[in-house]
Amino acid sequence: MKTFEAEVVAVLAARDKHSFVTSREERVVLDLAGIPGDRHYGLLRPADSRQKFYPRGTLIANRRQISIVSLEECARIAGSLGIERIEPEWLGANLLLSRYEPLTLLHQGARLLFPGGAGLICEGENEPCRGPGKVIGAAVGNDALANSFVKAAKHLRGIVCSVEKEGSILTGERVRIVTME
Amino acid sequence: MKTFEAEVVAVLAARDKHSFVTSREERVVLDLAGIPGDRHYGLLRPADSRQKFYPRGTLIANRRQISIVSLEECARIAGSLGIERIEPEWLGANLLLSRYEPLTLLHQGARLLFPGGAGLICEGENEPCRGPGKVIGAAVGNDALANSFVKAAKHLRGIVCSVEKEGSILTGERVRIVTME
Repeated sequence: MKTFEAEVVAVLAARDKHSFVTSREERVVLDLAGIPGDRHYGLLRPADSRQKFYPRGTLIANRRQISIVSLEECARIAGSLGIERIEPEWLGANLLLSRYEPLTLLHQGARLLFPGGAGLICEGENEPCRGPGKVIGAAVGNDALANSFVKAAKHLRGIVCSVEKEGSILTGERVRIVTME
Repeated sequence: MKTFEAEVVAVLAARDKHSFVTSREERVVLDLAGIPGDRHYGLLRPADSRQKFYPRGTLIANRRQISIVSLEECARIAGSLGIERIEPEWLGANLLLSRYEPLTLLHQGARLLFPGGAGLICEGENEPCRGPGKVIGAAVGNDALANSFVKAAKHLRGIVCSVEKEGSILTGERVRIVTME
């Protein structure tokens, strides 16, 4: 077991059920199903192409409650795409962290522990799909980015987590990252 | 992703809240919290020495709902201890599988998929502790086994799982094991 520290640069949630794009909030309070009112909140979610061993739409345990990206990795994706920046909102992220690299390679089973009591389990890399590419393309006025995002964001698009322990997460606070290796 | 097949030799549950020892049942029906009425049933469980980063007793997500051992590995533990057999009941196992080796080394994130719809996520190795050693010692009339069990069972004591998909598990049926590597 090793412990690291990172900074919570932004806390975000998707309150509009029609879009995965998130908005910044000062603070969220997690329960065992995620961030109440967020698009990805729930103990269950429908299986999709990531779980091909279940028929599409089958209700399964939700291990994608919280999405986390890092400032440094977003800057690298932006660099590859030749644009100024990638905002965490465009990726539908719930947390933007800084000072832990490479976040996306954090192993399944690593823990993220927050001063307000919340504890998350890393469920592994969030594999890039075209949705955020379209949002980025629209935001910077270049539709071609929708196609190049998936390749540019590979191993840089952050992680998904599930809630292990209820509690709050606050913008600006430190988070302890515990790896099991 | 690779797929294997194993056999469900026995299905068991711990219905007596005062003991971790399990008893055979023909069939169990899982919901998202495990086997209703089983000792390890629940969406939450108190943190113990395995999660030292939480104060002992803190309620956290239960990733130890189902315990699985294999016939072949139990035979190897019995061989090391110089006894005739190890029963899955003595280890508090919920499932006894056969024909998949080495079960205990199955990686976190592997899936176990049953014909009755149940799906389990492997949460990793179940590290041996002294409790089952005491039960084995009492069962075969040799108290010294309580101490030797932990060493003999290392990497052979099976896995713990959590429920990903509700459904039934039946004695004698086949289970599909899907690894993510």
